[in-house]
Amino acid sequence: MEISPVTVIGLLAASCTTISFLPQVLKTWKSKSAKDLSWGMFSIFATGVFLWLVYGLMISDLPIILANAVTLLLVLTILYFKFTFDRDEPAAN
Amino acid sequence: MEISPVTVIGLLAASCTTISFLPQVLKTWKSKSAKDLSWGMFSIFATGVFLWLVYGLMISDLPIILANAVTLLLVLTILYFKFTFDRDEPAAN
Repeated sequence: MEISPVTVIGLLAASCTTISFLPQVLKTWKSKSAKDLSWGMFSIFATGVFLWLVYGLMISDLPIILANAVTLLLVLTILYFKFTFDRDEPAAN
Repeated sequence: MEISPVTVIGLLAASCTTISFLPQVLKTWKSKSAKDLSWGMFSIFATGVFLWLVYGLMISDLPIILANAVTLLLVLTILYFKFTFDRDEPAAN
């Protein structure tokens, strides 16, 4: 099986957009502060990633399924942190 | 031209993951605070979106090109805000 340069670029792109949420998870976990994160951004993004996951399942595309399953897990973790830490710090919105 | 349910799901997914960054841009612009946003997340994500854009150009796929061009613009705006507002508030990291 030969991997084309286009496929390499696509795989690199998918790796970046997936793992990028890990530093945010770690930062928010350490700082226990999420007030600057937008509810709108992370909830709409989570909805989009969920729909990508459904799309991947409908077309049986394993890379789309895997990348979006991992991303969804990380984004839901960030949403959970925001819910928890904003509640503990009521002055923030 | 007939649009299949799979295509509709894909278009909805792409719309969500693209427009999701707009509420973050607006929130950060209003609050002038970006200290809870992770440099790692937004810079790796911007790299990934740039690579998706290159990928879209290489396979001449207009939806991939458009969605990622808009997302890149929004994510670069957030990075610019973080650079500017973190500098004005040196206690934050």
